[in-house]
Amino acid sequence: MTIYNFSAGPAVLPHEVLQQAREELLDWHGSGMSVMEMSHRGKEFMGIAAAAESDLRGLLAIPTNYKVLFLQGGAHLQFAMIPLNLLRGKSSADYVNTGEWSKKAIAEAKKFSNVNIVASGADKNFINVPAFDTWQCDPNAAYLHYTSNETIGGVEFNWVPETGGIPLVADMSSNIISRQIDVSKYGLIYAGAQKNIGPAGLCIVIVREDLIGHVSPSTPTMLDYKIHADNESMYNTPPTYGIYMAGLVFQWLKRNGGLAQMEQTNISKANLLYQAIDASNGFYNCPVVKSDRSRMNVPFTLKDASLDGEFLKQADTHGLLQLKGHRSVGGMRASIYNAMPLEGVQTLVDFITHFAKQHG
Amino acid sequence: MTIYNFSAGPAVLPHEVLQQAREELLDWHGSGMSVMEMSHRGKEFMGIAAAAESDLRGLLAIPTNYKVLFLQGGAHLQFAMIPLNLLRGKSSADYVNTGEWSKKAIAEAKKFSNVNIVASGADKNFINVPAFDTWQCDPNAAYLHYTSNETIGGVEFNWVPETGGIPLVADMSSNIISRQIDVSKYGLIYAGAQKNIGPAGLCIVIVREDLIGHVSPSTPTMLDYKIHADNESMYNTPPTYGIYMAGLVFQWLKRNGGLAQMEQTNISKANLLYQAIDASNGFYNCPVVKSDRSRMNVPFTLKDASLDGEFLKQADTHGLLQLKGHRSVGGMRASIYNAMPLEGVQTLVDFITHFAKQHG
Repeated sequence: MTIYNFSAGPAVLPHEVLQQAREELLDWHGSGMSVMEMSHRGKEFMGIAAAAESDLRGLLAIPTNYKVLFLQGGAHLQFAMIPLNLLRGKSSADYVNTGEWSKKAIAEAKKFSNVNIVASGADKNFINVPAFDTWQCDPNAAYLHYTSNETIGGVEFNWVPETGGIPLVADMSSNIISRQIDVSKYGLIYAGAQKNIGPAGLCIVIVREDLIGHVSPSTPTMLDYKIHADNESMYNTPPTYGIYMAGLVFQWLKRNGGLAQMEQTNISKANLLYQAIDASNGFYNCPVVKSDRSRMNVPFTLKDASLDGEFLKQADTHGLLQLKGHRSVGGMRASIYNAMPLEGVQTLVDFITHFAKQHG
Repeated sequence: MTIYNFSAGPAVLPHEVLQQAREELLDWHGSGMSVMEMSHRGKEFMGIAAAAESDLRGLLAIPTNYKVLFLQGGAHLQFAMIPLNLLRGKSSADYVNTGEWSKKAIAEAKKFSNVNIVASGADKNFINVPAFDTWQCDPNAAYLHYTSNETIGGVEFNWVPETGGIPLVADMSSNIISRQIDVSKYGLIYAGAQKNIGPAGLCIVIVREDLIGHVSPSTPTMLDYKIHADNESMYNTPPTYGIYMAGLVFQWLKRNGGLAQMEQTNISKANLLYQAIDASNGFYNCPVVKSDRSRMNVPFTLKDASLDGEFLKQADTHGLLQLKGHRSVGGMRASIYNAMPLEGVQTLVDFITHFAKQHG
């Protein structure tokens, strides 16, 4: 039986990437060493890291005036690093609140800055992206932060806020490299790796050069982007194996048509699943408004929640794993990141359709 | 040809651990998932993490009033987290300066605290541990910090400072689980994993419960030990694969006699190598005084430094890798952590003895 893993993160990785990692695990390219055993300053690993950065730059067409940093601490540490680095003498930052991950970013920013909530989906229980013409932006904000995809709520921006000259900051943890973007519209993009990029423990930051180098002297050195940028992410020992795995994923994307092809596949996958949910005559329900539905994380509930346990049990026996919804939402959630093949989504659709017929 | 990798870190891992990782890479215990693909909140990974903690607790006989934390950011982030967490309203901390890693810890602590250097090996060019009866301790210090093994200088404490009631803090990055210790003598022990524990990107902190929970409100949440302790290292997504690998290393140690046996093997390995250096009639020299020589990192120079390149070249052809000394010291450095077998050290000894005969 083929297993399909719908975990929200850490999440499924491309099968051929895992196979390559397995083949190279004891001896990378005849070096006699596992990648895990290599000095980060040795020529072998320096080559691996340089290729990973170069491939990511190619995939996202990252302009040369942006630094790419391979950091640790996940998006959670970025929630602090962003105000600590980007306030640059200003006293307030703009935040959009579209759900659980926005709220976490906002709560942490309030430790270091005044926070202006420019718009919130709270009054509609976070089922949509607030329309841009309702946003109350502060012309003196140090930056504007938004969560381009809410992993828990399944709400995704399909447009980029226009902020004038205010640096735009995006938490792309759960939709980076799932679609084409114009990096030049952003001041800073960050993403924990454990959804679309690789194993947990790696966080990627893409930041415009002029925005860094302005921290106060009391900022911990490890929380200063400039330190990492000046040392090419080798100020201290980076998460070497995670960088290696990310590099394999980037190569896999390049071999398979890059982000243009990936985006088309992701649209097909998401359409397939949402159509099955919407065609269930209310047996299943996705609360998110159609225009703002995530291509990556599809939350849905069963009309009869008492069937949840049976649904999950049967899904497991069909090899459809980790479909249980986040504890804050309940129901189900299917995360269908880049590495989830179309066949996996089709298998899920067949299963939910059959289950609805059985129990409808 | 058998390869022996003397990297200072990331460093050699036990061969049978890498083999097990390879076998389980695509499918952990029939789960259909790689460990890298598992939700950190799923039962599979929760079990892996709990076993890793339990095994480490067993190996080091960690008392129940100590928390074991699996963090990110390496020792470098600890350099900031320690003063941010352990000052507890005090204004000064004691630091011992025994070399490069002490200096880094001290420089970072100065951002947050007054620092009293109780003793320094600087006047002797860091070739020894300053005698305890010369230390100028501050009775009001929040804690006393020392580096139990200097990875670059090759200076190791073979005794534990007695600080009265002052919490003792040790950077054990390069000698943790290489020898038996009495954890109850410490307030906090920390160690980057990439030397004796597992892959880079994981940092282990062992901290006495009463010392945490005292940060100021302006401390980034991710830098508060209490947050990680209260959430059993799952406040955010931990470096799951690193924790898994660390767990395999702990199991390997348990299968092989635990730390009592490991310590004996490490003493044998270190004696073998130092004796060969000392018996070379000055062809090789280790500058560290004998009583303070590290069992983990053995720096040595060739009397004729113009032979360094030839030495490294020949070593490589004999499968003896990554022997080049740190850029700040020059010469050679053989790191002989737990995972370096006695045969690896014997092969190195045979090589250096032969090389000295050839060129002496």
